[in-house]
Amino acid sequence: MDYSLNNIKKIIVSKPLKLDCGQTIKDFPIAYETYGKLNAEKNNAILVFHALTGDQFVTGTNPITKKDGWWCSAVGPGKAIDTEKYFVVCANVLGGCMGSFGPKNIDKETNQPYALNFPVITIKDMVKAQETLLDHLGIKKLLSVLGGSMGGMQLLQFCALYPEKTFSAVPIASTSSHNAQQIALNELARQAIMADPIWNNGNYYKENQIPKNGLAVARMAAHITYMSDKGLQERFGRKLQEKKDYEFTFDADFQIESYLRHQGNVFVERFDANSYLYISRALDYFDLSKQFNNGLTEAFQNHKTKFLVVSFSSDWLYPTKNSKDIVIALNSSGANVAFAEIKTDKGHDAFLVDEPEFLKTIKGFLDSNFELFKNEK
Amino acid sequence: MDYSLNNIKKIIVSKPLKLDCGQTIKDFPIAYETYGKLNAEKNNAILVFHALTGDQFVTGTNPITKKDGWWCSAVGPGKAIDTEKYFVVCANVLGGCMGSFGPKNIDKETNQPYALNFPVITIKDMVKAQETLLDHLGIKKLLSVLGGSMGGMQLLQFCALYPEKTFSAVPIASTSSHNAQQIALNELARQAIMADPIWNNGNYYKENQIPKNGLAVARMAAHITYMSDKGLQERFGRKLQEKKDYEFTFDADFQIESYLRHQGNVFVERFDANSYLYISRALDYFDLSKQFNNGLTEAFQNHKTKFLVVSFSSDWLYPTKNSKDIVIALNSSGANVAFAEIKTDKGHDAFLVDEPEFLKTIKGFLDSNFELFKNEK
Repeated sequence: MDYSLNNIKKIIVSKPLKLDCGQTIKDFPIAYETYGKLNAEKNNAILVFHALTGDQFVTGTNPITKKDGWWCSAVGPGKAIDTEKYFVVCANVLGGCMGSFGPKNIDKETNQPYALNFPVITIKDMVKAQETLLDHLGIKKLLSVLGGSMGGMQLLQFCALYPEKTFSAVPIASTSSHNAQQIALNELARQAIMADPIWNNGNYYKENQIPKNGLAVARMAAHITYMSDKGLQERFGRKLQEKKDYEFTFDADFQIESYLRHQGNVFVERFDANSYLYISRALDYFDLSKQFNNGLTEAFQNHKTKFLVVSFSSDWLYPTKNSKDIVIALNSSGANVAFAEIKTDKGHDAFLVDEPEFLKTIKGFLDSNFELFKNEK
Repeated sequence: MDYSLNNIKKIIVSKPLKLDCGQTIKDFPIAYETYGKLNAEKNNAILVFHALTGDQFVTGTNPITKKDGWWCSAVGPGKAIDTEKYFVVCANVLGGCMGSFGPKNIDKETNQPYALNFPVITIKDMVKAQETLLDHLGIKKLLSVLGGSMGGMQLLQFCALYPEKTFSAVPIASTSSHNAQQIALNELARQAIMADPIWNNGNYYKENQIPKNGLAVARMAAHITYMSDKGLQERFGRKLQEKKDYEFTFDADFQIESYLRHQGNVFVERFDANSYLYISRALDYFDLSKQFNNGLTEAFQNHKTKFLVVSFSSDWLYPTKNSKDIVIALNSSGANVAFAEIKTDKGHDAFLVDEPEFLKTIKGFLDSNFELFKNEK
């Protein structure tokens, strides 16, 4: 893993942040990236929240991994989220490993990485940490916030905490609360990481080792949930990996096996195992209704934010039902809400790939809201 | 793990068996159990095929694990598969770890356990090995064969290989071929096992060690697929494990976490990791249509066996579509086939639990087929 994160943009949050767990942190870094330019009226800013294993490098080339940004399909010049028109901001989440304050950071008191001494954080903590960026960038009110998966959860939390800070919002393939299956899948990933002896109760930094095996298994498990049954079958089916027939070994006979192993192997090069534990924990703790007397409707009462809720028909990790529950709560609270279920075989990952109907939908929503926002008195 | 399997029923198959991988085995053990009595007419015998982690101990108390047999819900005196009426036989599969020939057996040539020198086996190999039991028990033709999940695959293979050897057949929550997602889930489990350094390329028997961590993760992953989203939510939801609020640690805060960990921990006490690899490999290789010029219909052409195909509405591991594909092929081949999709929230595991509509359906089918079989000239 490349730990040289020296040249990336960062702010140091000096204001103390009281975390949900009770601890208070201050003077911690939040790393971020921006694309496009903030206009003179400062009304073209869009905040993007990233998913579990995402980072601030939304588009272009990620300077750390040298690979494409994770949302190149949607963000860039002339794209659905047009960086020639909009100023796009994304921050690495608290607990992450791309420059924001996370478990691999050095604890000044011990001069060692925090590892499991890092406080357990929540989606709310992440959102509060990111909100500090708006002041720094001189943004009073965002044109929009967008986020898929965990990004959508941060978005909902942001809207609940700061209803005046965004004109519109697009939660994508997300949920307002992790259910038992979603918790189970995260627990599986955590147990896979913790099963690796190199993980060593979180203390693997000193030897410059990585619990690669466990982290790769965690990634493979997650990756299966990102794709639909039908999508996997169309892409891989029972195709063999450069061989004419079964070889009767435990090598990768099938292309899907080889693909999964590859996904595991490349992931461990870019992601910190402890960050995976912390961020997945934040996902499981997320339950927006719990913050509002067990009523999700309460979270959005009297808000003026214009919502577009998006789900994907073949997403079984955060199925349409999760999005519909958000729509129902928004409707009950009297909010302005549109809903689109995009028909696709691409599963949960559909928000990350070139899915024309999806991209057209968010482009239309952003462009029309930009006109409304410009004319707002 | 208790390796004392001395007092269980076994046959030694002396006739050479040529495996799909090309190797030939002979003089190997197949362990089995029987329930009820074979009647004088020898027309009340039912062969049950077990699933991935099942064994021959269908009902009563498993003498090795001291727990209930895996199909107590369906098999026993007065139950749907009534052992006062029927003679029920079940064998441990080839590659298994309950007494049948498997990777933990001693290779007489090296005086060491086979481990990964055990030949890679297929569902067809398993079925051929079990068929030898019928002669031993004096059964010319079975009243019925039943099997859920991998048991259903063995059943389909049995019917394709030996169309004259059973009067009826009940494949349950099964498929005629593993698709990409099903292969992916098995590959995930294998990678979890192989990621455990104690697995040591399969050579863990000598030190009397078990790759517990890896095998437990594999089991957790599988267990999630055995339950439905809705079933998990109804049973566990976001209920906390004997605590009032989040503890902000990586301990099991949620009941579902605790439940999954428990499932992993108890499993490693009774199952051999290498057996898991071999049997899951057999599942992935299974593709009945591949054996018949890529046409599933061919597999059942001119067969007289009466089929009842059963699926469960909330089973996402072997969804109803998989069963319907079997029904379509059986119909095309002119076979006698009934189909029942049982409405349930219990997911794939529904065939193992007390699901009244399911049990009533198989009881009705067996009892009526017994009458028909008795009157058969």
